[in-house]
Amino acid sequence: MKKFEEKTIRSEEIYNGKVITLKIDDVTLPNGETGKREIVNHPGAVAVIAITEEGKLVVVEQYRKALERSIIEIPAGKLEPGEEPATTAVRELEEETGYGCKELTYLQSFATSPGFADEIIHLFVARGLYEIENRAAMDEDEFIELMEITVEEGEQMVAEQKIFDAKTAFAILWLKMQE
Amino acid sequence: MKKFEEKTIRSEEIYNGKVITLKIDDVTLPNGETGKREIVNHPGAVAVIAITEEGKLVVVEQYRKALERSIIEIPAGKLEPGEEPATTAVRELEEETGYGCKELTYLQSFATSPGFADEIIHLFVARGLYEIENRAAMDEDEFIELMEITVEEGEQMVAEQKIFDAKTAFAILWLKMQE
Repeated sequence: MKKFEEKTIRSEEIYNGKVITLKIDDVTLPNGETGKREIVNHPGAVAVIAITEEGKLVVVEQYRKALERSIIEIPAGKLEPGEEPATTAVRELEEETGYGCKELTYLQSFATSPGFADEIIHLFVARGLYEIENRAAMDEDEFIELMEITVEEGEQMVAEQKIFDAKTAFAILWLKMQE
Repeated sequence: MKKFEEKTIRSEEIYNGKVITLKIDDVTLPNGETGKREIVNHPGAVAVIAITEEGKLVVVEQYRKALERSIIEIPAGKLEPGEEPATTAVRELEEETGYGCKELTYLQSFATSPGFADEIIHLFVARGLYEIENRAAMDEDEFIELMEITVEEGEQMVAEQKIFDAKTAFAILWLKMQE
């Protein structure tokens, strides 16, 4: 048995959407009592720390409806069913920034919100960037603006909460460590 | 108008739970077309980078039903309605670890999953830890195990995916930067 495992007694699907699924699980807790867990299933995503020749970080600004504001993030996107994360990384980098990369390295993966969601982000580092001539189109509901920033500018944007998400905060810290 | 703003035409609440609320918003996109956004509302949370006298990081292992496994995380917990994040930080640190702290510093905040959720984590650094004699009880459905780890052990746990969430990955990197 897994440590502190919570066995599912009953699982009810509340909503099955385009991006996420919501289910409510009745579980047996380690002390024998029962509890309820609200769980969001997500297909998982990739995010790319793309570094230019000058050592700048490629970021995109986009509106995030959940937050009701636009924020600056590293390029990222959802996994398609059965897609390898590295393939998603190359595709999203191209779609969101117009860049291809000569070198793509897997860095690490993390769950974004383990308290209620199973979303996992696979982080990659892309180097050897080059502009793609006939770039892949963005999703039709995506509107983004491209920027290239230094670590110092990134830290300033964190302080001003223009950079305001976990993967990008991690990327800034990681890039600073490489200096 | 906010950059790339997506105005809500209609919002439908699908589920209102103990932790999260799910709603589906019909929005007007910047190009005038309409789209749908699946949005999870969450009360927000705090997480605490608690550092012992020996420079070790205090972490807890707990089962995360959404991931169907136990993972090792820095102490964290949801904001109660109207609660100041610093108050939540002190409470969660005490409940999950039995430690009080002489010094609590706000570090930064980030959205965990801006693509579908409004959850924001407020990160604090706690130093001057001391054991509390009559510690506050944990939530009745929480089962956790306490550990204190070095940065090197933390990096090993990241490599082995025992540490597997964004806030804790960030904490390990942040702590390494302080060395």
